[in-house]
Amino acid sequence: MKLLEDRIIKDGIVLPGNVLKVDSFLGQKIDAPFIAKLSEEWKRLFEGEAITKIVTIEDSGIGIACIAGVYFNVPVVYAKKKANSPSADSYSTKVVSYTHGNIYNVTIPKIHLEKDDKVLIIDDFLANGSALNALIKVVEKSGAKVVGAGIAIEKNYMGGADKIRNNGYRIESLAKIKKLDDINGIEFC
Amino acid sequence: MKLLEDRIIKDGIVLPGNVLKVDSFLGQKIDAPFIAKLSEEWKRLFEGEAITKIVTIEDSGIGIACIAGVYFNVPVVYAKKKANSPSADSYSTKVVSYTHGNIYNVTIPKIHLEKDDKVLIIDDFLANGSALNALIKVVEKSGAKVVGAGIAIEKNYMGGADKIRNNGYRIESLAKIKKLDDINGIEFC
Repeated sequence: MKLLEDRIIKDGIVLPGNVLKVDSFLGQKIDAPFIAKLSEEWKRLFEGEAITKIVTIEDSGIGIACIAGVYFNVPVVYAKKKANSPSADSYSTKVVSYTHGNIYNVTIPKIHLEKDDKVLIIDDFLANGSALNALIKVVEKSGAKVVGAGIAIEKNYMGGADKIRNNGYRIESLAKIKKLDDINGIEFC
Repeated sequence: MKLLEDRIIKDGIVLPGNVLKVDSFLGQKIDAPFIAKLSEEWKRLFEGEAITKIVTIEDSGIGIACIAGVYFNVPVVYAKKKANSPSADSYSTKVVSYTHGNIYNVTIPKIHLEKDDKVLIIDDFLANGSALNALIKVVEKSGAKVVGAGIAIEKNYMGGADKIRNNGYRIESLAKIKKLDDINGIEFC
């Protein structure tokens, strides 16, 4: 989506270590009217799918998922990341953090997912895929169907997205980054 | 707002200790299309104010504020709660947690607030007012003007909201709770 690619080029900051900061529109400051345009695009892409719920993960996914919820006219549920063991009334799965190496549980209360749900997962970033993989597992434990994932920025070079696609899941990323470094900047797929 | 009062009566759960849980529409599950209707009401109430930015506080305010941001057509900035000292490039103020008694800092990076901003603060709950007071202080440190606050559920009996109103701030709460207990249920103002 050219709109998002242009915004990343204009306002994104590439730091050493292949870190992309988009804090001025998709971070601690969220450009809600701009995110609404991304939501319209996901709505267009997933037209015809009878989506009943959007699922995301705290913290950074919540704002973007809630805006998408308005456009899809469905409720939003966010998974929590918990260091301690999940309770019996939650669906959960363990994740090893790529950044910090620690283990945490991704959990959603059972009451918030139904087996008839058709779930669209929404998130701001997709890199090595650990968060998305965990969300898929947690949603499927409820018996609900994962229709696909709408991602704002995919770090395609990290391979996580294509692995999940190869497992049969539909991922619609609105900007796919092929290369990223603080010397040469950003190249999109 | 009758719509919100009816929803609280229908789906809210009152626990011992005057705790109101609204987790099925304004918690870990967020009924985005419903929150959109609350946003339309705030938009109507603050019509004529040239609001340039919405400010809220993590975590629970983010989703509701982002939806409001779409209706007000302005960006959203959320304050973080930090245990450690804030950096020099942030506006911040200290808060003593009512629930836990610990001290934390409410911080917003200076880059996300401008002195010409006219800020609407959005939050899900207003009880003793410590979070809203902190947000007002942090915003005003930037030189920006606080136009008012849009709150979903005000626990009016706790007194925080009226104290802030008496200091000259406009607070528009869409449901004001007069009494709350697990025996007699909820009474609105």
